[in-house]
Amino acid sequence: MTSETRRRLLAACRDIVGADGVVSAPDELRVYECDALTTDHRAAPDLVVLPTSTDQVAAVVRLCATAGVPIVPRGAGTGLSGGAIATRGGVLVVLTRMNRVLDIDLANRTATVEAGCVNLAISRAVAPHGFFFAPDPASQQASTIGGNVAENAGGPHCLKYGATKNHVLGATIVLPSGEITHFGGRLADQPGYDLLGVFVGSEGTLGICTEVIVRLLPVPQAVKTLLAVFRSIEEASNAVSAIIARGIIPVALEMIDQETTQAVEAYAHAGYPLDAGAVLLIELEGLSAEIATEAVEVEQACRAHGCLDAKVARSDEERTLLWKGRKSAAGAFGRMTRNYYHQDAVVPRTKLAAVLREIAAIGVQHGVRVPNVFHAGDGNIHPLLCYDDRVPGQFERAMAAGDEIMRCCIRAGGTVSGEHGIGVEKREYLRLMYSDDDLAAMQRVQQVFDPAGRCNPGKIFPDQRHEERAP
Amino acid sequence: MTSETRRRLLAACRDIVGADGVVSAPDELRVYECDALTTDHRAAPDLVVLPTSTDQVAAVVRLCATAGVPIVPRGAGTGLSGGAIATRGGVLVVLTRMNRVLDIDLANRTATVEAGCVNLAISRAVAPHGFFFAPDPASQQASTIGGNVAENAGGPHCLKYGATKNHVLGATIVLPSGEITHFGGRLADQPGYDLLGVFVGSEGTLGICTEVIVRLLPVPQAVKTLLAVFRSIEEASNAVSAIIARGIIPVALEMIDQETTQAVEAYAHAGYPLDAGAVLLIELEGLSAEIATEAVEVEQACRAHGCLDAKVARSDEERTLLWKGRKSAAGAFGRMTRNYYHQDAVVPRTKLAAVLREIAAIGVQHGVRVPNVFHAGDGNIHPLLCYDDRVPGQFERAMAAGDEIMRCCIRAGGTVSGEHGIGVEKREYLRLMYSDDDLAAMQRVQQVFDPAGRCNPGKIFPDQRHEERAP
Repeated sequence: MTSETRRRLLAACRDIVGADGVVSAPDELRVYECDALTTDHRAAPDLVVLPTSTDQVAAVVRLCATAGVPIVPRGAGTGLSGGAIATRGGVLVVLTRMNRVLDIDLANRTATVEAGCVNLAISRAVAPHGFFFAPDPASQQASTIGGNVAENAGGPHCLKYGATKNHVLGATIVLPSGEITHFGGRLADQPGYDLLGVFVGSEGTLGICTEVIVRLLPVPQAVKTLLAVFRSIEEASNAVSAIIARGIIPVALEMIDQETTQAVEAYAHAGYPLDAGAVLLIELEGLSAEIATEAVEVEQACRAHGCLDAKVARSDEERTLLWKGRKSAAGAFGRMTRNYYHQDAVVPRTKLAAVLREIAAIGVQHGVRVPNVFHAGDGNIHPLLCYDDRVPGQFERAMAAGDEIMRCCIRAGGTVSGEHGIGVEKREYLRLMYSDDDLAAMQRVQQVFDPAGRCNPGKIFPDQRHEERAP
Repeated sequence: MTSETRRRLLAACRDIVGADGVVSAPDELRVYECDALTTDHRAAPDLVVLPTSTDQVAAVVRLCATAGVPIVPRGAGTGLSGGAIATRGGVLVVLTRMNRVLDIDLANRTATVEAGCVNLAISRAVAPHGFFFAPDPASQQASTIGGNVAENAGGPHCLKYGATKNHVLGATIVLPSGEITHFGGRLADQPGYDLLGVFVGSEGTLGICTEVIVRLLPVPQAVKTLLAVFRSIEEASNAVSAIIARGIIPVALEMIDQETTQAVEAYAHAGYPLDAGAVLLIELEGLSAEIATEAVEVEQACRAHGCLDAKVARSDEERTLLWKGRKSAAGAFGRMTRNYYHQDAVVPRTKLAAVLREIAAIGVQHGVRVPNVFHAGDGNIHPLLCYDDRVPGQFERAMAAGDEIMRCCIRAGGTVSGEHGIGVEKREYLRLMYSDDDLAAMQRVQQVFDPAGRCNPGKIFPDQRHEERAP
């Protein structure tokens, strides 16, 4: 962007959102040069705009369209694949000031919220009425629904309830042209092509979502949380398949390996055994009678696969403590290693044991520690590649191990991302899954929405058709 | 199509699928001139081809691409919006010979079936293992999974489980160019744009689906069916909202009005009361303990809204009989009226009572009988417009009433199709829901898949960009 273009945009953006809604000082722009992706992708935007209405977003986007500069939508910046980084400069549109719950319609079980509304704020707003919003990414205390829509965010409880895609009924979208449009609506049945379906998970490349109509679910009558202890990851993996094969879908089925339980336990005192090869954290929701029966079946399935011990939380306190262990994993990682690269992939449940064995071998081969905490129920693994960026070669070795892990998952019939998205991180890996024709078809869909390729450019796709930077 | 083009295509198609796989005699082609849409849309294709493999489909489609003639995919022809009619001639590709179940993978809960596989055949194939395929359109004994995918078919049990879209994980598609591609896969998490999401419900306009990977669900432990009797449709509608508001999602929540119960009862002897203004047929599925509790709550909710009587089926025989009444409605209609036009729309549940009142008034005003049997739980109504095509003016009056009903549903915040699709039937009504820009965006997506506009042309969209018939 030329300094003249930048000067004009700055003035015009200030007119639209007010001076306090624009960030332009280089030091302040550096705050936005990365998101929660911990590897080496960094790029500061030319300007940051913080709008407070859909009309303001549309006005800013129209400005950028006229000027021919990139626009990059951003929520809380908690994404793990670099999707909210302005890799080619331009204007970063940060939606955190649009955080209102606009409407709660209990009879039709929907809530309408602004895109910058924090995930957990939705459940908090409807909790007094006995409802909740199901998708629960680990970032749910910070991440916004707009970002969740962009990434089709998952979470532990998505095993039973499905990911963000299954809970979004409609959205207000500012297209890259600056037009305001609406996809979907309050009703599940919308004739014509399902453009909302394409938008969810499109990682900010098709437009900027400003309002979302979400589906609400009634809070279940009862919840039961179990910790099952295993000698090995292999036995725990087999128990996962056995539970599902019995026709039980827990709301959460999380696996935590020994290295992580030890690290977590030192801090959270969650009651995880230190000598177990792996533990499963299993949560059931429903009517009391229903989950009592299911808990017995889950325990049977675990014991049939070498479970050494299974304990059921007997109080809310015990339950909270068991989850505290799981939720402290990210913090524990920070104490286990100076730097880490958090991978994300999916493999068929039945391949979990084999893939995890192979991941361990890859770690040994590259001299990289790879603890694992993940959503076992839907085969969504999250190997954590540990390294120290002060030691020459460690970063490169961690990246090489990560690369081999991706290829191993694909060989097992898996995919290269379960919930973190492709962003800038995994663009090249898409080639492992899709042919050139597949990718070209997706890019032609992108061009329908964004013919100039200005909306979050440089994301998702490996080949870059729009290499030119805007003037 | 010129006779020379037709002669060449006929010979080439015979080479691909064999002489017994091609229908070309005018008398035989007339079998395919309509589907289950009962109004006046009829058009015979130039040729009908019945392939037995994806490769054969691709070869036929490539032929048509070279010749520049329309292709129209068709399953069992049970669609209700004219989607399987070759309105502009061309080659009708009928997939009923591709009806195999290719693979059942219980550990990952998927089945892979050919597109011509009948819906109910999937559940039959996996029933011995304790699984089923959830979407259950009324046509499920005849309709194919390929057609279900094209229409995103619903059914009574989709209230709890969601429509076809929620149960299809992957598909093999022959694009209008003749290329074979795969959308989605066995795993729920597929990075990149969700092209499968766009394909499902695209009514055969984006390509021909030849294989489908479906999600299987475990057969629930127990089922409970209730018949609740009401003085009026209004009270029954309020009970529907009350049940859902209590946090109970029955698998089915069907409403049958007095005119229909009387017609059905004369034939099916299902035990429906003849003097009730409306009955609700409510089915609960789950663990025995769970649904016992829920049944009590459902009955309470009904009684709180004027329910005169509620009975629970005490045996499989009683349950089958209650459903026989509901399922005999279509047959009963045939005895109630010489001709009928079966509408399909969705309104917010909370607007059901008001909309049904307005529909009754519209019927009176136009002198058209409008009995109602429908999926009340998700607000998906199916007014049946009765007429006699031998009486001048009756058809026109029924169509006029149908038009007003559509507008009434839109005013109530509804949509113009719940599960039957747009097809040729409702193209103009899309304008009531979508702006020109919305429709243009959808059509640009269509062009990505079908730049020449040859795949099921003349469907879904009101404005016809490809008016020219193929040579």
